Amino acid sequence: MGAAGSKLGEFELISRYFLRGAAARADSSGVVLGIGDDAALLALPPGTELVAAVDTIVSGRHFPEMADARSIGHRALAVNLSDLAAMGATPAWATLALTLPDAQPAWLERFAAGLLDLADANGVALVGGDTTRGPLTVSVQILGHVACGTALRRNGARAGDLLAVTGTLGDAGAGLAFVGTRPASAPSAAALALIERFEYPAPRVQFGRAARGIATAAMDVSDGLAGDLPKLVRASSLAAHVAVECLPLSDAMRAAVPYALALDWAVGAGDDYELLLAVPPRRYRDLEAAAAQLNLTLTTIGELHSGSGVTWSLNGQEFQPASQGFDHFA
Amino acid sequence: MGAAGSKLGEFELISRYFLRGAAARADSSGVVLGIGDDAALLALPPGTELVAAVDTIVSGRHFPEMADARSIGHRALAVNLSDLAAMGATPAWATLALTLPDAQPAWLERFAAGLLDLADANGVALVGGDTTRGPLTVSVQILGHVACGTALRRNGARAGDLLAVTGTLGDAGAGLAFVGTRPASAPSAAALALIERFEYPAPRVQFGRAARGIATAAMDVSDGLAGDLPKLVRASSLAAHVAVECLPLSDAMRAAVPYALALDWAVGAGDDYELLLAVPPRRYRDLEAAAAQLNLTLTTIGELHSGSGVTWSLNGQEFQPASQGFDHFA
Repeated sequence: MGAAGSKLGEFELISRYFLRGAAARADSSGVVLGIGDDAALLALPPGTELVAAVDTIVSGRHFPEMADARSIGHRALAVNLSDLAAMGATPAWATLALTLPDAQPAWLERFAAGLLDLADANGVALVGGDTTRGPLTVSVQILGHVACGTALRRNGARAGDLLAVTGTLGDAGAGLAFVGTRPASAPSAAALALIERFEYPAPRVQFGRAARGIATAAMDVSDGLAGDLPKLVRASSLAAHVAVECLPLSDAMRAAVPYALALDWAVGAGDDYELLLAVPPRRYRDLEAAAAQLNLTLTTIGELHSGSGVTWSLNGQEFQPASQGFDHFA
Repeated sequence: MGAAGSKLGEFELISRYFLRGAAARADSSGVVLGIGDDAALLALPPGTELVAAVDTIVSGRHFPEMADARSIGHRALAVNLSDLAAMGATPAWATLALTLPDAQPAWLERFAAGLLDLADANGVALVGGDTTRGPLTVSVQILGHVACGTALRRNGARAGDLLAVTGTLGDAGAGLAFVGTRPASAPSAAALALIERFEYPAPRVQFGRAARGIATAAMDVSDGLAGDLPKLVRASSLAAHVAVECLPLSDAMRAAVPYALALDWAVGAGDDYELLLAVPPRRYRDLEAAAAQLNLTLTTIGELHSGSGVTWSLNGQEFQPASQGFDHFA
């Protein structure tokens, strides 16, 4: 311990790189006791339920081995914030379980910056951490709160509800494909925009909160629409139909790849972290207005009806998704 | 998805092996919504603070590569329960981030049994999970609660307080050493008892709760006394002296190894998950009575005084610990 260099003590590692957020917020966001004891003590606002989720990202599986540490830190928190967004919850605290092969100061600085910048932007305090040596694995547990009984669930959708998504779909999948080619050729502006969408996803936290009381069900699209929509449909005991030509595509996507490939990515690629919502037709304008206030596009992509399963069409013709979404053990 | 075998889908994997605890407790311990949505919804008892901790164990680092999956599952939760015990908190919920190379049903069954048996015994519901493919890494986040303002911290000790530990020290370290030799020779009963202490540590949850209002500070001994005591001493801005001959040794330890080695392990080895407490002399009997009610031994090992740092003696002679405790990046 003590001297800087490649050998950092565990406690010093945590306090040097990760205490920024915790220290700054110890008095302002319910943190009674932050990093440094056996556990954190946290005060939940009255009248709320605790909301908890965990998501892990693994090197070579969820991000390229050579990914920028800043992006890894950002994504590790973003995927968890997205889970809270999908519940309409307010994120408040996070703990970090970081397994890494060695403690390189430059890498840790960028990783912590990516994670803590996003934490600060979302009012999240890092209240606990654990660092161990091993293959690079980043597990974040996010904690937040929501007024009792108001959380958005997957199982509340009703027959006749419209299906809507925020933002655009497929960008992160396209971006990940371009990441692989980056060193070989100078990427276009469109490719760079797509790569940015993969490396720095924007969880829809504010919109999720605004959608409470309007949407009947919500989830985030992390494993691709074709993988995730069936989960919402099953939870609500309904069927869904999606009009693939309605899926929102970004200008960058349209500029960078052929239309058919863009649709495949929009249907099947993961990592976008947009929200998928069910909303009664008469409330659609309210949801749209909430999105507009956040400069977020909202697009109707289909509807829910009684039955089970998901059907897809493209301009009135049956459409067969190329991918069924990402499953780590399939 | 669907058929059993070596290829299990992610969602099926979670629901097949890990839903036991969550389903059984959905109505009985504040679980408003358990596994299966984007996040869990949890109801904290009124008048309590939320207590949160996270700890990761990595194959080949925190347990031998060939360790029994049942022990791995037990230990992954036990190390986290021990953190809550050290706060005097009541554990309630846990999330699991499991990274594993492949999904072998026999392994998963034993792992889940080890984790869920200990969860059930402590009233903990598993409310969230994430499984990803990669090198075996188990990260558990534990959530619990404690009446506002009553948590045991590391920084409350006062000059003149006695230092006490629960149970016996060094057993897990000795057990780990015997694990390595197990295949070569038939182990003695004493060696088996020590191995059991490594593989199935018993977190002192009930005693931690009982110690609130009596002890002035507490922490768990996870990295070895020589590594952990300086943290309590620093947090309380005090100095400590330890009489090494007072360290509690188990009968198994005395039977299995030479006395000098037993003392080294008691001073420096980790993984015991006993509690280290500071207690004013006039309250010692109360703490002892609380331990006796749980059939737990409590031993005075030294005292705290003004100053800084830790000094050690063995039968009145200065003693130099061989190890300074376990630090993953030192």
